[in-house]
Amino acid sequence: MRKLKMGMIGGGKNAFIGSVHRIAANIDGLIELHCGAFSSNPELSKESGRELFLPMEKCYGSFEEMILTESKLPQQQRMDFLTIVTPNFAHFAPTMLALNNGFHVVIDKPMTLSLDQAKQLQQKVKETGLILCLTHTYSAYPMVKQARKMIADNALGKIRKVMVEYPQGWLSRLYESEGNKQALWRTDPTKSGISGCMGDIGTHAAQLAEYMSGLKISKLCADINIVVEGRQLDDDGNVLLKFNNGANGVLVATQIATGEENSLKIRIYGEKGGLEWHQMEPNSLLVKWPDAPAQIYRTGNDYLSNVARFNTRIPSGHPEGYLEAFANLYRNFALTLSSLLQGKTPTEEMLDFPSVDDGVRGMAFIEHVIASGKSDQKWFDFKI
Amino acid sequence: MRKLKMGMIGGGKNAFIGSVHRIAANIDGLIELHCGAFSSNPELSKESGRELFLPMEKCYGSFEEMILTESKLPQQQRMDFLTIVTPNFAHFAPTMLALNNGFHVVIDKPMTLSLDQAKQLQQKVKETGLILCLTHTYSAYPMVKQARKMIADNALGKIRKVMVEYPQGWLSRLYESEGNKQALWRTDPTKSGISGCMGDIGTHAAQLAEYMSGLKISKLCADINIVVEGRQLDDDGNVLLKFNNGANGVLVATQIATGEENSLKIRIYGEKGGLEWHQMEPNSLLVKWPDAPAQIYRTGNDYLSNVARFNTRIPSGHPEGYLEAFANLYRNFALTLSSLLQGKTPTEEMLDFPSVDDGVRGMAFIEHVIASGKSDQKWFDFKI
Amino acid sequence: MRKLKMGMIGGGKNAFIGSVHRIAANIDGLIELHCGAFSSNPELSKESGRELFLPMEKCYGSFEEMILTESKLPQQQRMDFLTIVTPNFAHFAPTMLALNNGFHVVIDKPMTLSLDQAKQLQQKVKETGLILCLTHTYSAYPMVKQARKMIADNALGKIRKVMVEYPQGWLSRLYESEGNKQALWRTDPTKSGISGCMGDIGTHAAQLAEYMSGLKISKLCADINIVVEGRQLDDDGNVLLKFNNGANGVLVATQIATGEENSLKIRIYGEKGGLEWHQMEPNSLLVKWPDAPAQIYRTGNDYLSNVARFNTRIPSGHPEGYLEAFANLYRNFALTLSSLLQGKTPTEEMLDFPSVDDGVRGMAFIEHVIASGKSDQKWFDFKI
Amino acid sequence: MRKLKMGMIGGGKNAFIGSVHRIAANIDGLIELHCGAFSSNPELSKESGRELFLPMEKCYGSFEEMILTESKLPQQQRMDFLTIVTPNFAHFAPTMLALNNGFHVVIDKPMTLSLDQAKQLQQKVKETGLILCLTHTYSAYPMVKQARKMIADNALGKIRKVMVEYPQGWLSRLYESEGNKQALWRTDPTKSGISGCMGDIGTHAAQLAEYMSGLKISKLCADINIVVEGRQLDDDGNVLLKFNNGANGVLVATQIATGEENSLKIRIYGEKGGLEWHQMEPNSLLVKWPDAPAQIYRTGNDYLSNVARFNTRIPSGHPEGYLEAFANLYRNFALTLSSLLQGKTPTEEMLDFPSVDDGVRGMAFIEHVIASGKSDQKWFDFKI
Repeated sequence: MRKLKMGMIGGGKNAFIGSVHRIAANIDGLIELHCGAFSSNPELSKESGRELFLPMEKCYGSFEEMILTESKLPQQQRMDFLTIVTPNFAHFAPTMLALNNGFHVVIDKPMTLSLDQAKQLQQKVKETGLILCLTHTYSAYPMVKQARKMIADNALGKIRKVMVEYPQGWLSRLYESEGNKQALWRTDPTKSGISGCMGDIGTHAAQLAEYMSGLKISKLCADINIVVEGRQLDDDGNVLLKFNNGANGVLVATQIATGEENSLKIRIYGEKGGLEWHQMEPNSLLVKWPDAPAQIYRTGNDYLSNVARFNTRIPSGHPEGYLEAFANLYRNFALTLSSLLQGKTPTEEMLDFPSVDDGVRGMAFIEHVIASGKSDQKWFDFKI
Repeated sequence: MRKLKMGMIGGGKNAFIGSVHRIAANIDGLIELHCGAFSSNPELSKESGRELFLPMEKCYGSFEEMILTESKLPQQQRMDFLTIVTPNFAHFAPTMLALNNGFHVVIDKPMTLSLDQAKQLQQKVKETGLILCLTHTYSAYPMVKQARKMIADNALGKIRKVMVEYPQGWLSRLYESEGNKQALWRTDPTKSGISGCMGDIGTHAAQLAEYMSGLKISKLCADINIVVEGRQLDDDGNVLLKFNNGANGVLVATQIATGEENSLKIRIYGEKGGLEWHQMEPNSLLVKWPDAPAQIYRTGNDYLSNVARFNTRIPSGHPEGYLEAFANLYRNFALTLSSLLQGKTPTEEMLDFPSVDDGVRGMAFIEHVIASGKSDQKWFDFKI
Repeated sequence: MRKLKMGMIGGGKNAFIGSVHRIAANIDGLIELHCGAFSSNPELSKESGRELFLPMEKCYGSFEEMILTESKLPQQQRMDFLTIVTPNFAHFAPTMLALNNGFHVVIDKPMTLSLDQAKQLQQKVKETGLILCLTHTYSAYPMVKQARKMIADNALGKIRKVMVEYPQGWLSRLYESEGNKQALWRTDPTKSGISGCMGDIGTHAAQLAEYMSGLKISKLCADINIVVEGRQLDDDGNVLLKFNNGANGVLVATQIATGEENSLKIRIYGEKGGLEWHQMEPNSLLVKWPDAPAQIYRTGNDYLSNVARFNTRIPSGHPEGYLEAFANLYRNFALTLSSLLQGKTPTEEMLDFPSVDDGVRGMAFIEHVIASGKSDQKWFDFKI
Repeated sequence: MRKLKMGMIGGGKNAFIGSVHRIAANIDGLIELHCGAFSSNPELSKESGRELFLPMEKCYGSFEEMILTESKLPQQQRMDFLTIVTPNFAHFAPTMLALNNGFHVVIDKPMTLSLDQAKQLQQKVKETGLILCLTHTYSAYPMVKQARKMIADNALGKIRKVMVEYPQGWLSRLYESEGNKQALWRTDPTKSGISGCMGDIGTHAAQLAEYMSGLKISKLCADINIVVEGRQLDDDGNVLLKFNNGANGVLVATQIATGEENSLKIRIYGEKGGLEWHQMEPNSLLVKWPDAPAQIYRTGNDYLSNVARFNTRIPSGHPEGYLEAFANLYRNFALTLSSLLQGKTPTEEMLDFPSVDDGVRGMAFIEHVIASGKSDQKWFDFKI
């Protein structure tokens, strides 16, 4: 085994999510930054690379240049995989080019601009046998995995109700008119696609609901809103859900919940018990019983399932956070890739990261929910 | 001023809500129990009265007997008002008879079995000028009143979103088949009317949302479910809301959220800030700002509004609860009645309790939400 | 059984604790206010009585007049017991007079001005067989009783450590110089005795620690402070404790913890587990285990011990508070008294309220802790 | 600027804290692992190094070999600094050797086995001008720095009281007799020195109290206990404190608080306000006021001080934890070192990490507190 070499597209100076990806890739010492096309401006790309201690020849001026140049290097000298941290509209082309040139890919969500693009990537991944990891960070928290395992083991009985909510407040004003860079592209249909809030955070909520419950959304009825005057894309929405086992649910995603930070929360109720997890205090999982005291499961304890412990680095009482969850994605992806490079079969625990199939479901969620929001029809079947 | 004399209909031995009403009426020493028809069984009524230290002649065998007998007594010897704590189906007749005989009424929610009955009572109250207090307890908590006042004073700016939820778990099994008395009548259409969960707790959530926000529900789209097999009435529902100022909202009421106790919670977001209140920790009100730390408003402090302080009995840090909230209803009702009896005009603070109009809106909510749940039409206008 | 008749000494208009006692006595409908000497000013006493709907002849001008007059009435017409809600310095005389005239007594803590007075009352209670209930409210919360029972049942194993703290902030300024009535007498040695903070709230903390743990303080080492310049009595203190089974502990009581309300909290650790209770969120009891998730025991649930359920009035999820805890004292006292009046033996659950012995221990605590605070000797034996 | 090269002493396979140091050093991409003497067993050292992708020639068999070999390499090829993650008894010799050979040092606390050793290191650091960073992790959390800044800016007024507590439960049994490796050395006087609990976590609590308050402990009175039978060193203690400005305090550190994880908590009260921080939910800082609602300051918000924002990597609502706090130490140390290597003066923010002086105070704290625990004298002056 050796360190894996990562190429990065996007993530230049001042880009928020690029630095998160680098930290996440750094944490476990399994991955090293090998090259980058950090900006579509070649000067900026080089400047960003220099600050990251890269040699200048590894700072490319475009993703095409990087992928094509690296693909011609001997295997020991070229990047092992590519991570794509650009805005949505700039996901598809580099991903497709990378897959066509034999590179594995890590990519931020939502995966593409449209369901059609997503299906093309799905097909390509299937053909090439390459790995695509989609960074739905929230499903990588240890207590989310604990919850998923308990539900899979039937600890709660048949699941009846899923309540997932993702309130943020950072778009409660028209910040895109005040020069906020994050707000600018996320509210711009040419950069973000047909949805703002639902694409950005609604997809996280939907993926978390399906991942934790083990169920699939089968119907939905959406109220999709542009609350702040002058905005071009939805900044708020409430969705009634039905799941494939008959359970019902509610999904709320909003970016105009003034004063909220990043308050993703999920509650799942079954015949025998319920549970509750809150991203802002992620090391606790509250489990509720009808005839016994509620229990607080906590990260790092021996009583947790193997999968929860596998995705934890430090003992109980030492809080882990968002960056460690993100690092779990990179670590599991890296362990999977290393296994494959060594000709071994990755374990189930290694393979536990969102894939191109989650990307397709995410894009389908966006398209259904936006269509439902515009329609007078009550229930929409969710099908891909 | 003197103690007011209360007659009680229902609330015999082992009845949960009857004892709550008596405690609430006792707390402030403004009301004394004067007579009762505690059960439709005259023996049980007398036995209940004896345990409450009533003289036997004040333990009536039926509500008709009580109302008619008391109405013939000189004013100093008869009851001043009637409190009705029977199941829903037994609200209308005694209330109408009481009003027709000149007695003021306190009554539990939902007010009647149908919107039509509710409108009849509304008309009668209007004609007689008598007072009807509907015991929506949750709107009587001091921090609910603080929130209402802050919103009315525009502290949050224009309201944009209301999230109200009321998860309980006590009907997560078919308890009505196991002899649970509360479950029996609440799931029985002949006792409860056309709705179970929405009538029992959905109405509380809707009333709280309107009371706190100062808005009115104008449209709704409901998913109404019978989750537990064999049950006759809804035990779960999720409702999309629109309010008269354009705000959107979500209302969840469920009695199959296994492990939940009585977890009513409301969040309201405006242009300038948001707030959050949770019934199970009712002495805190969390107020959130976009550019400043969130604040925890707490019962009993001098910085609160007059109305919050008027509805509090003890200093900060000494927790108040459900019974004190319930007692606020009785106290405000009693102060109003005493003022009227003395020929004075009650203050706005005294008059701050739910009225027959809330009862009409509650019944309309039930009828709309059940109709919407059965319909393929997406949005229903909410109108009375 | 009949309603018990209560006489009150102190508690006139604007007195905080008098109104708390009346509410607590009212709640369960077992007690009626019969007479009072509400103020040492006869006019004020009558005015207070009128507002409480008492006949004028039952509003006495002094406690001596009330006790002597009532004692001459036939048993059916006189008060059954006396409640004393005056400042500390005015506890001893009316209590002794009441006991000498055959009246049971409810009295606020600390019981007297000195340990010597306390022992005289203890001796008198022993001689007369009358009942004295000391209103250590905090030990009357249902979850405190649940904790006590679990510890008594050895659920935590041998107790090793007790951490009790009672931070308040209401004396963080020299409020007694600003006309605050509560501050005035509580910081005045002629009214309060040799201690301010330790007498007022340190005694609550010590009683709670002993009640919940079932242990007795055997040694202490105190740091007692006057933090606010110009104050006459201690407003802050930290005490190291040893208990009779070898456990150690810490007691912090302070009234200069700026911004704190009434934040009494206790944690007890044994060989097998630990628990934590906080007065400001009193319906939860956190129980911690070394090899399993922590549990949240909640008021009103069937899984609680009999004694916890006996001291609860409403179902789980309906918060109870300070007034209900206070009412538990009055109710248990009233049930005990009613049993005795009917010639029955009170049950253990009825007898579960603090007695004259707690009063003696409280006064001994004050005297030891103040002496230790002044001494260079490290450990003081706590003995009575 | 370039990546700094780190040599590691200790931290071989299965060592908990070694992996924490490596993650912390990795996170920001400023440091690379260059060499190590991971174990006193040369085979184990090489095996550990291989797993960390080090070339075999950089896996040394002893710290002496590593320091002396590296010191002879040209500056560009040798390590820049040394990190020492061995048990206490193995801190002094490698640190002194490193300093004598011109290497900067990062070292875990407590710094040495005795105050005398600590003073020798302090003297050596002074002579050489090298940098020593002591990893008191808890002072590196952003909200701790926010609190320190607010106190320094007099937001709370003069500080009056400091309550710091550090309850853990992991030594509630005699785990050292059950083969627990961490327990074995931490309870062994030859490895840990004269103190167990006070040395391991009491020092963290004392350092945090002084760092946050800006005060210095001036007197103490300690109750030091061996609670679990058969243990050789203290596992529990309670300490009364006086600070140099007259404030009082309490420090509790215990490892027998059964069921507690790593529950470090601090509260500080001043004339004008108070604050509270809890390590297990580290992204919130509760600030309390006498006449206004309490405020919740949260990591990542623009309203925070520069120093809090400088020590944060991600936006509000994305929880940071223990590893990020640890990484702040390494990052600030690395920025300081890089500045010096480039001939620049480090900023105040870069220099914000615990130094050899904290190490000396920590050892003095241990020696005073253990001496006080054995003495009948009440107060000990704390002086170095």
